[in-house]
This record gives sequence, structure tokens and C-alpha cells, in this order.
Amino acid sequence: MPLPTDPGGGYTHEQHKRNQRSILEAGTLYRLTGDMAYAHFVRDILLAYADLYPTLGNHPAARNQLPGRLFWQTLNDSVWLVQSIQGYDAVRDALSPQDRERIDADVFGRMARFLSEETPTNFNRIHNHATWAVAGVGMTGYVLRDPHLVDIALNGLEGDSTSGFLRQIDRLFSPDGYYEEGPYYQRYALAPFVVFAAAIEKNQPELGIFEVGDGVLIKAVTTTVHSSYGGLFFPINDAIKDKGLDTEELVLGVAIAYARTQDPTLLSIARRQGRIPMTPDGLAVAEGLSQNLAQPFAFSSRILRDGPDGDRGGLAILRRGDDLTGQTLVMKNTAQGMGHGHYDRLNWLFFDNGQEVVTDYGSARYLNIEAKSGGVYLPENNSWAKQTIAHNTLVVDQTSQFDARLSVAEEHWPEPGLFIDEPGLTLSSATMRGAYDGVVFTRVLALVDHPALPMPIVIDLMKADADRAVTYDLPLHFSGQIMTVGFEAERAVSSRPVLGDGAGYQHLWVDANSPNFLGERSLSWMLNGRFYTYRFVEDVPSQALLVESGANDPDFNLRREPALIRRVEGQPSVRFVSVLEPHGRYDGVAETVTDGSSRIRHIAHAGDDAGDVIVVTLVSGEVFALGVSAPGQEGRSHRLTVDDRVYAWTGPYARFDQ
Amino acid sequence: MPLPTDPGGGYTHEQHKRNQRSILEAGTLYRLTGDMAYAHFVRDILLAYADLYPTLGNHPAARNQLPGRLFWQTLNDSVWLVQSIQGYDAVRDALSPQDRERIDADVFGRMARFLSEETPTNFNRIHNHATWAVAGVGMTGYVLRDPHLVDIALNGLEGDSTSGFLRQIDRLFSPDGYYEEGPYYQRYALAPFVVFAAAIEKNQPELGIFEVGDGVLIKAVTTTVHSSYGGLFFPINDAIKDKGLDTEELVLGVAIAYARTQDPTLLSIARRQGRIPMTPDGLAVAEGLSQNLAQPFAFSSRILRDGPDGDRGGLAILRRGDDLTGQTLVMKNTAQGMGHGHYDRLNWLFFDNGQEVVTDYGSARYLNIEAKSGGVYLPENNSWAKQTIAHNTLVVDQTSQFDARLSVAEEHWPEPGLFIDEPGLTLSSATMRGAYDGVVFTRVLALVDHPALPMPIVIDLMKADADRAVTYDLPLHFSGQIMTVGFEAERAVSSRPVLGDGAGYQHLWVDANSPNFLGERSLSWMLNGRFYTYRFVEDVPSQALLVESGANDPDFNLRREPALIRRVEGQPSVRFVSVLEPHGRYDGVAETVTDGSSRIRHIAHAGDDAGDVIVVTLVSGEVFALGVSAPGQEGRSHRLTVDDRVYAWTGPYARFDQ
Repeated sequence: MPLPTDPGGGYTHEQHKRNQRSILEAGTLYRLTGDMAYAHFVRDILLAYADLYPTLGNHPAARNQLPGRLFWQTLNDSVWLVQSIQGYDAVRDALSPQDRERIDADVFGRMARFLSEETPTNFNRIHNHATWAVAGVGMTGYVLRDPHLVDIALNGLEGDSTSGFLRQIDRLFSPDGYYEEGPYYQRYALAPFVVFAAAIEKNQPELGIFEVGDGVLIKAVTTTVHSSYGGLFFPINDAIKDKGLDTEELVLGVAIAYARTQDPTLLSIARRQGRIPMTPDGLAVAEGLSQNLAQPFAFSSRILRDGPDGDRGGLAILRRGDDLTGQTLVMKNTAQGMGHGHYDRLNWLFFDNGQEVVTDYGSARYLNIEAKSGGVYLPENNSWAKQTIAHNTLVVDQTSQFDARLSVAEEHWPEPGLFIDEPGLTLSSATMRGAYDGVVFTRVLALVDHPALPMPIVIDLMKADADRAVTYDLPLHFSGQIMTVGFEAERAVSSRPVLGDGAGYQHLWVDANSPNFLGERSLSWMLNGRFYTYRFVEDVPSQALLVESGANDPDFNLRREPALIRRVEGQPSVRFVSVLEPHGRYDGVAETVTDGSSRIRHIAHAGDDAGDVIVVTLVSGEVFALGVSAPGQEGRSHRLTVDDRVYAWTGPYARFDQ
Repeated sequence: MPLPTDPGGGYTHEQHKRNQRSILEAGTLYRLTGDMAYAHFVRDILLAYADLYPTLGNHPAARNQLPGRLFWQTLNDSVWLVQSIQGYDAVRDALSPQDRERIDADVFGRMARFLSEETPTNFNRIHNHATWAVAGVGMTGYVLRDPHLVDIALNGLEGDSTSGFLRQIDRLFSPDGYYEEGPYYQRYALAPFVVFAAAIEKNQPELGIFEVGDGVLIKAVTTTVHSSYGGLFFPINDAIKDKGLDTEELVLGVAIAYARTQDPTLLSIARRQGRIPMTPDGLAVAEGLSQNLAQPFAFSSRILRDGPDGDRGGLAILRRGDDLTGQTLVMKNTAQGMGHGHYDRLNWLFFDNGQEVVTDYGSARYLNIEAKSGGVYLPENNSWAKQTIAHNTLVVDQTSQFDARLSVAEEHWPEPGLFIDEPGLTLSSATMRGAYDGVVFTRVLALVDHPALPMPIVIDLMKADADRAVTYDLPLHFSGQIMTVGFEAERAVSSRPVLGDGAGYQHLWVDANSPNFLGERSLSWMLNGRFYTYRFVEDVPSQALLVESGANDPDFNLRREPALIRRVEGQPSVRFVSVLEPHGRYDGVAETVTDGSSRIRHIAHAGDDAGDVIVVTLVSGEVFALGVSAPGQEGRSHRLTVDDRVYAWTGPYARFDQ
């Protein structure tokens, strides 16, 4: 029971986290076994807290406006309360009235007051930190039989539901159960939502809490699962990349959702999680699994609309096959996602063969590692990870979208275009206005199958129009070892300059740059025994730069990862056209290489105000094409010519196979 | 049946490899099923080869002095013969005399002649390439009933056993079954040895081939297994890092060895391999596994002596725990290892927690990948991978050991010192002369346990003495993200110079350098959720440089990997002292960090001509020390003082716990 002194990752921080876990687990064991030793164990810890807690003021290592008491930030205190009140709930009836009274008053009562009335700025927010506070306070209300605590938790300190849990459910999840900060924080936010909801359901079943908002709390669980590949969440926004389906929050969430829905596809997720909470909901999961009821979870293409009312863009997920070996393309057409959002409208990621192939840096942070500034977000999170150049989307004049100003960014989101999911073609498009003054950009991303190709290819069309001549940069962050640089490039082999001096550019070393060129280029790399060939062409002269993150990083905080940047200077408009082709296999054990060369011979593009066509010619001579109408031009007849062939269609899109 | 035109990895190369596999597999299936369809399949392929083969001259893509006919190098032709003759052996009796005669004469007879009398330079070598040729020719001799072919295979073209298989067994394996090129090539060399030996045993059991050289062929199999961690071979010399226990060669070798020894620990390796050859030996393995006879393979500390007579140094393997989670330290005190050897006497590697922590670059090569020069060794293999600076051992005056001259390097090997394996202490030492004119260096590496440390630490003492003032560099190549740079350093954050202009230094970018300093420094990093703190001190002023590979690499052939270089300028002698401490755990899923800080407070050293003592002081205040006598001084009484404590011992070494 140390006096709180250390920041995240330090000894006292970790010890109080261990204590909260001990209280919860010993309480759970008491409930399961009835062995008083567990109840006494919980009691003794909590009596020690009853001695300690009233003596505490603000935590000495606090760094922001919301200092906690046991921990350096209020958030950790809230989490402590949510966990510990559950352990206390299990043993409270077994304690003497004197002990109960002391713990009620000096631990939980005081803590609930601290986290609500004494820190109203936090408690009344519409934010996941507030959800932890609200859940802790509300559950404390149920355990301490204090209706006031329950009331402020549900309806806010003012009691008018402009804040509090019900308002949070309404505003923090979209109608599709998407949480605006993205999957990493969705997973984190989920725990207090479902745990508090389960407590509400038990104590006030008349509220029908799991039916609120068309059952959005259950949707939020399945949406979190959909937001993953290979068991890991899509690392958009301030994500830490090792989080996924097996996190404790989702273990709890899946059990709570399964117990209420008996959805058998959730059982296959529970099996992958490899553990089950020791709760009645966990028991339901165990029974379902033991009765072999599990069905595969249906990972499939879909849009998760963003915004409380579902009208602020969304996350488009394009899938082929399963989430362990198949292809998943994520197009980030969402809104900003509050303070943990990145300035990367119309960014994309691509997963294949169990790997993240087209990558997102995630956050610059080493959670809980004291040597890395105590585990907080590092300076490079702002200077690199959030900046547009760190993502696979459009940068204008080497500044980030919205000039990296959160208040501006929160007011703008993409306008969704097409979403098509039919055999052989899955496509998403969106248009962005307001990221840069006077610039509109529209992106079309598609997974396209062809009988001559063993795997789908990605077709990417980025169209940008400005009201003046600007510089456009379009990065592609990829993972793997470069195999072939398919263009003339001047290599920086003996001294390595930095690309720029701000907006994230200061963190990029230049490895190669090529002069202005009009025509097709390519880059191929290998990752995990598979080859990737990226072909690209623009309708105006462009440069191609090969870069790597890691410059201006005095504390070795950054990972060093490669990127290709396509640059167009002094143009009002550009069409960036590209095709990413996964192919072949390098089998190091058997010493065989198959399909080491691309099966595509060349790509071409034509476009006008009404639409675009991208034509792919295979080495075999076969040709196929994708026509896409410009937003608002879907009703017109389109006619475009590429290599003397005419591509004509009406409607929003067309596929041509010759 | 394409006309041979492509180099390694190309279509015709891979197709002829597929054919050899088809012949072997169809032959095997015929043997198992008696279904004539398989025999006819083999016959038809071989008749097509009977048409093709006599028309072939030297392969058009040949690049060295030993062109093949089906393949770009003789070696691949030899492998083809070894595989295909086994398939042919299975079906030959089932063919018509006419077909048999044609295939005997126009395929195997011609090929055996080509690979022996027509390419004597290859056939008579004492080298793994020659073993493939000898095995193919000898097995062809058995199948074609041609005693001459068997005789030249066993005893060489001159018939006097100055070359041929028996001589190869004698000269290519050490008495401990170590193959001088190292584990990667040992695995490759093993296949023809054991396959041909199995054929000899069947046809001429009177030769007792598996008893030759005290059973060295069986030892060679178990030694290959010992030369691995986490299922992958130690990547010393020209290794490709994805090769390990599950390679086809070792699957065959383990089956052949098990069938002859019934060693139950080989069964656990066979189980890890996950496949079994379809041969009588494979059947024995399957039966052993089905009878649950498997015992764990006893990975343990040992020296594998190098050289035909075991007197040319050796590979020291220091182990704790198993090969999946435990610690393994490899000290490379071997001889050169012919053309695939690296100039890295007294190099070391360290594995822990399933990972290669202190690394060896291996080779610069992408096997069979056409885009990377057809899969041959790349220029960077000579300019970087073989050079001393690419390894964790001593560089003098920024030149490689032996000036990277193979003929000189082949004449020098380390003199083994101590090898100790007792509870809590495993230690290896060796002394090197002749790597640099007038320089002698001795290294002591030890795995040391202490009750206060959950894992063993590595103690490393490198002592170097020259007959003049020189510059010493001691690199440490490590894998992981830097957590803390425990020394003052000037960071190259906005422009990145190259470290030198030759001997591999031209491939290193400088990230940081620190001025001359006398005292202890440290560097810590994280890999796979574990922390590593490396503490180092020298007895003279030294610099510390942080570097990364990848400079002067125009074709992106190199992986980019970090290293720490300790540099001592203008000194005749230096004692490099270091301690590597694995500690703690970062659990990203549970969001916990334990033991993120080192448990060591500081390290110190004292030494004289007769010996050295390294003292480790823990944060807890506990102190322990390791005393090691200088070579030849083991008999003296030693007395050294560190921090006012006297360390006195007699004998080769002593451990002090206070």
C-alpha cells in the first residue's frame, strides 16, 4: 500500500493497479467459493485504503489538468473504482457493519464524490474518460444503496441528461456502434459501458439499458470485432499496435454480448480470446463452447458510419477471405475522433497474408514504460504520428490537413460516395472538402478480382482539385524489404538529408528521389514470403521519393519505417492512379519462389469531369477496367478512351472485362 | 520440359526443380502403392529428359566457373541427380528394357559422367558441392549397376581416397560432427551425406558407413539440431535466416539417424518438424511417435570442436532452459569455414525469449529471388555481411580481420581457453592471434545466474593487446527499440553521415556519437516485450557510437539494423567489459510493465597480466564477481582489488558472492 508518487509504469502506479486487480479477483473467488479467506483479504486491502485515501491530495506526478489521487491522472482512479467496487460488491455483505461503514465512507464514498462532484469537468464530459468515472460512480451507487450516485451517473450532475451515461451512449457511439476515436479506444471505452450496463440491467431492469439506441451497446461489441485483422485492431488514430481481440475489455464485452444475444459467432471470438471472465456471462460462454455451438464470425465488407447520428463519414472495410490469411482494405472516411484523432482524411490501410502491408504508424507512445517519459504520448505523437504525411493520404503544400488544428478538424468530415460489394468488386469512395482551403479531393478504393489473378488487387484513384497551383504529396507507407525500384532515382547513399522542416516532414530521411516524369512507375517489396508490386501513374508530371521515418528523433522514440511519396508540384489538379498487386510466394524452408514477377504489364487512366476509367493490362494480354463516375455525375452517359479502346457506361460505376 | 535458360528463381530453373521433385515423389508413391500410373509418370518425364539432356551444353545463365547443364550451376545439377536417381531407382525394374536402356544411357549415365569425369575440379573437391556430385554419381552407380561410378564416388577419380565420399566424411566433419561452414551449410551438406550413406549401407553393408569416424554422420545430425534456437539455425557465416529444423534436409537426416539409433530425443525433433519422409526410416519415426516414445531433445551447453581433427577452435554453445523461451549464447571460436565463412573470430550471438537479441547479419542474399540478381550472393555480402564490423567482435584500425583475405584467414583459428558448465555459471573463453598483425585478443563470455536476478546475465570481457597504438572498435549488433541511451551523445538528427569508407564501415549510418569518456555507460532496448540493459566500461577512454546498417546500398539490398560501437583510439591495449541483463516484461495486452528498470546498479573491473575480475553490484546492494585467469596463468594466486574489496583466487576462475 505505497503512498502514490510514481507516474504510469512506476512502482506505486503498478502496485495500485495490482491492488485493484487483487480486490476484483479475490471478490470473484469469494463469490465462487464462499471461502471467507477471500472476503477477509478484500476487507484488509480496503481497510488499508480507508486509512490511506482520506490523507491524499492531488497526485504529485500529475501532468495534466485532471490529477488523480491514487494515480497521476483521474482516469486511472476511475478505472480503479470500476474494478474495485465489483470486488467489494462481492464481499460487502460478509463484512462486519463497522468494517462496511468505514470502507463505504472512507474509500468508495469519498472516491465517488471525488470522481463526480469534485471533478465535474471530467464527470460531465462526453468522452471515454468520463464513461469510466460515470460507471464507477454509478456502480458505487448501487453497491452503497445511494440513489443519488446512480442518478448523477445516469443523467449527469445536473440531472438533465445533458451528460451522464445515457447521453454518452447516445453521443459516443454511431448508429453502427462505431466509437469516434477508433477501434483502439473503442476497445478501451467499451469496458465501462458494458460493465455498467450489466450492473444497471441487474439493478434496474426496467431501464432496458441494452435496448437503448436500437441495441447500440451490443453493436459496439461486434463492431469492435469487425475493426480487426489477424486478431489486432486497425491501428488508426492514437492506437498502440499490440491491442486486439484478446484484450480484457473485449473478453468482457464478448461475454456480456453473448449472454444477451446467444449469437453463436461470438463464441468463435471467445475461443480465439482463450479466456473467459469468471462471471455468469462467462459461464454462458463456457457452456456455449462446450456444447460446440460456436460458428465462425462473419468478417465481411461493410461501412461503419461515424457520428452520433451516423452522418459524419465512416470507416469502410473491404474484405476478401478470413481475417488471418485474406485481404482487408480499410478506408478511413471518418470524422476527427476528438483529441486522439489523426489528420488523415481518406487514408487507407491494407492487410494481407496475416500482415499489415500498407501501414498506419499508430501512436508514438510506449504505454506504461517509464523510460519513455513514463508512458505518456511522446512529443513525436504530435510532430509525426498525427500529421498527414505519416498517413496514406493527400498532403497539400507540405502542411497537414486542417493545419493540424483540432477545433477546425472536428468540424469537417468526408462525404461518403459509393459503397459497392458484389462478387469480384468491392469499392468505397468519398470526397473531402475543407481539409485544405480551396482544395477538394475524392478517392476511390477498390478490391478487384480477376480470373487470371490468384488474389484481388487494389485499385486506388485519388483526384484532387485546387483553386490554385499547389504541391501535392501522396505517401504510401508500406512494410517489407524493397525488391525492385521500378524507376530512375537518385539515391542518397552516402549522406542522408531530411525531407522538410515541419508537419512531420522533419522526421523523414530521404533515401531516393526521382525527377519529374510523366508515365508509369512501380515499386515492389516482399513481406512474410509474399511479393507486392505497386504500380502508379499520374496525369501530370510527378516525382517519386523513397523515405524512412526516424529523422529528428533525439530520443529514439520512432520506429523506422519506409514510405514512397509521389509529389506533384505547381499544379491545380492531379489524378493519382495506382494498383497494388499481391503475388507469389517465397518459401525459405523449401527454397522455392513462385510468381516472383508481377502478372500486370501496365496500367492506364483516362478521366474527365464526369468520371474516370482505370485500365489494367495483364502480362497475359488480358485487359480489364473499372469505370467510376464523379460524385453527382452518376446519372450521365460516360465515354472515355484508353489505348484506342472506348469505355462507355451509365450509372455510378462499371466494370469492363475484355 | 523447358530448354534451360533462366538463373536461380527463374521459370526454367524452378520447373526443372519441380520435375526432380515429381520424379522423386512419383517414384516414392509407386514404391508405396505399386500403381503403374506412377511408374509411367516417372518414365515419361525421364524419356523427355533423354531427348533433352544430350542436346545441352553449358547453361546460358552460368556465372561462375562451374556451369551446369539443366541449371546455371553444377551444384543444382548434382541435386537434381541425387533426387531423381532415387525416383528412378523405385521404378526402374518396372520399365521396358528399351526405356530403361535409354534412360540409363541418355539421362543418368551422361549426367553421372558430366558430374564426375567431365567436371573433375568440382568432383574432387572437399566441399559440400562435391558431396552432392559424389552422392549423385555413387547412387547412380548402384542403380545402374556400374561399380566404377560407385568406386569413384567413394574413393575419388584417382581411386586413392584423396578425394571422394570417404575422404569428405573424414575432412568435412569435425570429431564432434561440426561442419566447418557452419549450421546453415551443415544442414545443406547433410542431405547428400546421409542419403548416400543410407544407399551405401543398403548396397554395401560391409562398409559399415554409419560407423566410419566414430559414427560421425549420426553426430552430424544431432550437432545440426544443437546448432539452433527456436527452431532456427544459428545464423553465423553466409546463413539465410529462415532455415531451421523443419528443412527437408534435416527431416531426412533425423529420420535416418533415428532409424539407426532409436534415440528417443530425435523423435521430439521429428514431431516439431511436422512431417516425415515417406521412406522406411520415416516409417520408423512414425512408429516411434505413435508409440509415444518421444523424449525432449537435450539442448545443453557444449563445445562443437572445429576442424577435421577437432583442433581448429570450435563453436561454444552456452544454454539455460529450453530453446524456445530460455537463453542461448553462441561464441564463434571456429576456423574460417571456407568461402562462406565470415571474418569474425570470437564473435558472439545471444538468444532469449524466442528472439535473436544480439544478432548476426547472416548473408546478404535473397535466395532464388530473380529481382535480387537472380538469388545469388549480393555485392553487399562481401562489402558488408562478411566484414568484421558487421559482427560482434574486435575490429582494429577499421579494417577487417585478416584484411578479409580468405587464404590468410583459413590458416588461423582461435586457441580455446576455458569451458565451464556448472550450476549458475557457464563460461567459454578463447584467444586469437594472427587476425591482425601484432594484435592478440582474448575473450571471456559467461552466462551467470544470481538469486536476485530472475534470468541469467551475460558477462563479456574482451582483452586486446597490440605492439603499437591502434584504434579498436567493438560493435554490438542488437535487435529491438532503444529505450534509454545511458550516455551523453551528440545525435545526428538532421543529417546522417556515413561512418567510414571501406571494410563495411561505408554501410553504416551514424545516429549518435559520444566523446571520449572513462567510466560506465549503458544502453537499453526492448524486444518482444522484454527489456535488455547493456552496461559497458573500458579501462581507457572510449567513445560510443550508435549506428545503423543501410548506407551505400543503392539497390536496397540491406536490412536496416542498429548497432552500438565502442571505440578506443590511440591505445596499445584495452579491456572492454560489459554485462547484458535481460529483465522485465511489457505486456501490451494487459497493459502492465514489470521490472522495466535494470536490477544492476553498476559494474566494475580490475585486471593485471595474470587475470581479471568483473564485479556486478545490484540495486539491492548485493555484490557478486567473476574472476578469470589469463591464458597460461591459471596456476597462479590472483589478487585484485575493486572498490576496496579484495578478490583472491587460485586456479582458472572463481566466482565471488558477498
